[in-house]
Amino acid sequence: MQPDTDLPRLIVLTTDFGDIEGYVGVLKGIILSITPRAALIDLTHSIRPQNLVQCSFVLGTSAHYFPRGSIHVIVVDPGVGTDRDLLLLETPDATFIAPDNGVLSAILSKNDSSYQARDTGYLQVPDNCEAYVLTESEVWLKPVSNTFHGRDILAPVAAHVSLGMPVSQLGRKVDSVFFLSTPVPTREAEMISGQVINIDRFGNLITNITKDLLLNSSKLQVHIKGTKIPELSTNFASGLGSKLSPGLVSLIGSHGYLEIAVKNGNAAKILSVDVGEPVLVRTDWPG
Amino acid sequence: MQPDTDLPRLIVLTTDFGDIEGYVGVLKGIILSITPRAALIDLTHSIRPQNLVQCSFVLGTSAHYFPRGSIHVIVVDPGVGTDRDLLLLETPDATFIAPDNGVLSAILSKNDSSYQARDTGYLQVPDNCEAYVLTESEVWLKPVSNTFHGRDILAPVAAHVSLGMPVSQLGRKVDSVFFLSTPVPTREAEMISGQVINIDRFGNLITNITKDLLLNSSKLQVHIKGTKIPELSTNFASGLGSKLSPGLVSLIGSHGYLEIAVKNGNAAKILSVDVGEPVLVRTDWPG
Amino acid sequence: MQPDTDLPRLIVLTTDFGDIEGYVGVLKGIILSITPRAALIDLTHSIRPQNLVQCSFVLGTSAHYFPRGSIHVIVVDPGVGTDRDLLLLETPDATFIAPDNGVLSAILSKNDSSYQARDTGYLQVPDNCEAYVLTESEVWLKPVSNTFHGRDILAPVAAHVSLGMPVSQLGRKVDSVFFLSTPVPTREAEMISGQVINIDRFGNLITNITKDLLLNSSKLQVHIKGTKIPELSTNFASGLGSKLSPGLVSLIGSHGYLEIAVKNGNAAKILSVDVGEPVLVRTDWPG
Repeated sequence: MQPDTDLPRLIVLTTDFGDIEGYVGVLKGIILSITPRAALIDLTHSIRPQNLVQCSFVLGTSAHYFPRGSIHVIVVDPGVGTDRDLLLLETPDATFIAPDNGVLSAILSKNDSSYQARDTGYLQVPDNCEAYVLTESEVWLKPVSNTFHGRDILAPVAAHVSLGMPVSQLGRKVDSVFFLSTPVPTREAEMISGQVINIDRFGNLITNITKDLLLNSSKLQVHIKGTKIPELSTNFASGLGSKLSPGLVSLIGSHGYLEIAVKNGNAAKILSVDVGEPVLVRTDWPG
Repeated sequence: MQPDTDLPRLIVLTTDFGDIEGYVGVLKGIILSITPRAALIDLTHSIRPQNLVQCSFVLGTSAHYFPRGSIHVIVVDPGVGTDRDLLLLETPDATFIAPDNGVLSAILSKNDSSYQARDTGYLQVPDNCEAYVLTESEVWLKPVSNTFHGRDILAPVAAHVSLGMPVSQLGRKVDSVFFLSTPVPTREAEMISGQVINIDRFGNLITNITKDLLLNSSKLQVHIKGTKIPELSTNFASGLGSKLSPGLVSLIGSHGYLEIAVKNGNAAKILSVDVGEPVLVRTDWPG
Repeated sequence: MQPDTDLPRLIVLTTDFGDIEGYVGVLKGIILSITPRAALIDLTHSIRPQNLVQCSFVLGTSAHYFPRGSIHVIVVDPGVGTDRDLLLLETPDATFIAPDNGVLSAILSKNDSSYQARDTGYLQVPDNCEAYVLTESEVWLKPVSNTFHGRDILAPVAAHVSLGMPVSQLGRKVDSVFFLSTPVPTREAEMISGQVINIDRFGNLITNITKDLLLNSSKLQVHIKGTKIPELSTNFASGLGSKLSPGLVSLIGSHGYLEIAVKNGNAAKILSVDVGEPVLVRTDWPG
């Protein structure tokens, strides 16, 4: 978790604030007031409001692209002001500062693959990680509001971590953290059952069916909402499509998951599909 | 207004440009062309188009979170190309470069509390501030367009201020600046009358009724659009709600104003409420 | 193309990703992982999905505002995964790294004005530029996905260019690049025929009719969708408007193009106009 250079550790922000009201700007202002040399980068601020599952997915597919030693601050916090804890999780690669509400579930799964089959609940911290609950209020902004702990607690804590303050001065070590299970695809004979877990700006449908499950086979048939896609394409611009939906393609997306897309179109709108829509894959299809 | 470190003074951008068309990027490109070591941060670019009142509110609730000596550039400018002036306002904490159209009203009120009861119009500059009208065109981009003074005047002026150019080389000192009054809540016996002054991305309704007016009492009843909320909650996740709107809560938001919200929902949509909606608070409610 | 200072060359990002899913954040994470001192700026991420014409327009009206020697990374790439090439274009002012799909057309036209009258197709690289197809995969992220070459190829290439890697180690020099022609206005006697080529966040209609074509005359009449605007205004707040649309004004916008706007309103909505709408200008109007 030490940075690779003598530069300040990168602070990466992920929230559901959008660009509205200056909330994101204020987080940055606070951090720069404490540590003017901070290097700040946005991962995204367009997590759908209070969507813990999407936030976990985005972190799980993105965090490893940032420099080793990055400090991630995550503010997706529907329980702000309740008794949910605020967490600092140290993994071998990075530090995550976030509510203890499941937004770090995909990060936990990456560090301990046994998590993938676990149910929602408090789980033991993976062996290669350390977790702390933020308890030491010295560095917090006062008075702490009931509705914006990102501003009053997480931002100043991140700034002090980047300045090298020992974690023991910020919180209390804990053994378990909250984990939010995500739907796992199932396989019965030659049929894989999964679902849409995310929809991107282009309307592409991202499923929870990974490349590995498909055994790297292009011989398959994808079923979604009464439509069949007869093959796996290699890009958005090709594909036979189906009679019902010309231009409809299935392919392995950039995150390694099966995606369903429409050439120059919006698959979510054309198929009227939302997150949670079932997706079936027949892997014995002649291709 | 001197920066606390030997780092360049932070330049903070606030506009109503959204992310469309590269307008924000161009402001940054111009500043970095003049002063490549500039530190640039976005407060927000999602001020509703030409909404001076919202812009003033966001600056008033956010600017104090940025480092001392920050240079704020504000481009919300419906009168661009008319004879409205462009202003540089020095306060004890920061420098603001903006059209003289009222976007700095909340900043003026913070520096001189007597402003809060004043009417819209030109008011004398607070004693602890200095105001300049930008008149010296040497540093402006040429030719100056009639429609984008943010690009042609405000951005290069901010860059030169950050390089240490004396204000006297940029403009002419003035005695008065334009002030836009905002609706002030009134109290009659135990009844406070206010209104919704802002709606955030979550649909939370921010009113102009401050914590102080409520006398820190949780014994109260909030009336909005025919619905009554019987108490003040401490967070978004709790609250009895009302028969009409289960999950509806009132609470003191992170800016210190009374807010009305719906647990895991969008209060603005559920109540069909827009900015300006009256809000009444009965402070003698048993609680 | 050498930077003016000893600072790292600025890397400017333009995409159609919006802020969704962390795609933009990941580009930055990869660049900072390779070159932690990189200076990164967003031009815009709100190019309409896969809109090559708009992307070219925004680059053509914005790129010259950035410091000399900037490295532009453009990810608007509907053909990702097909056999379209990825390009590095060196102009006298900057380096552009982008798919070879026409997004650099306006930049090419600026460097060789003969391009403006050319048809869509592969054209010879302007004399003052050099073009390379990216072929050397050593610096690419592995495995290269079929759907996100911005992440796997363009971002790491940009980082290595900023570190000073010679272009010859990144690709193969080519003689021609893909050019996308844009509609050119025509003049017949005193009548200029053009069209709306862009609509900004305020609903202002940007046409392809330049200031030069209007001969700097304010004596003209603008026709759009059955409405006549009887003069050229100097700003958004003035103008006689028309009987049909009070407040409707025509003016020269900040990019030097004829724009049609509504004072404190949204011209695109009020006139129900989209990109491609014909616009006529009578230049013999008494004024």
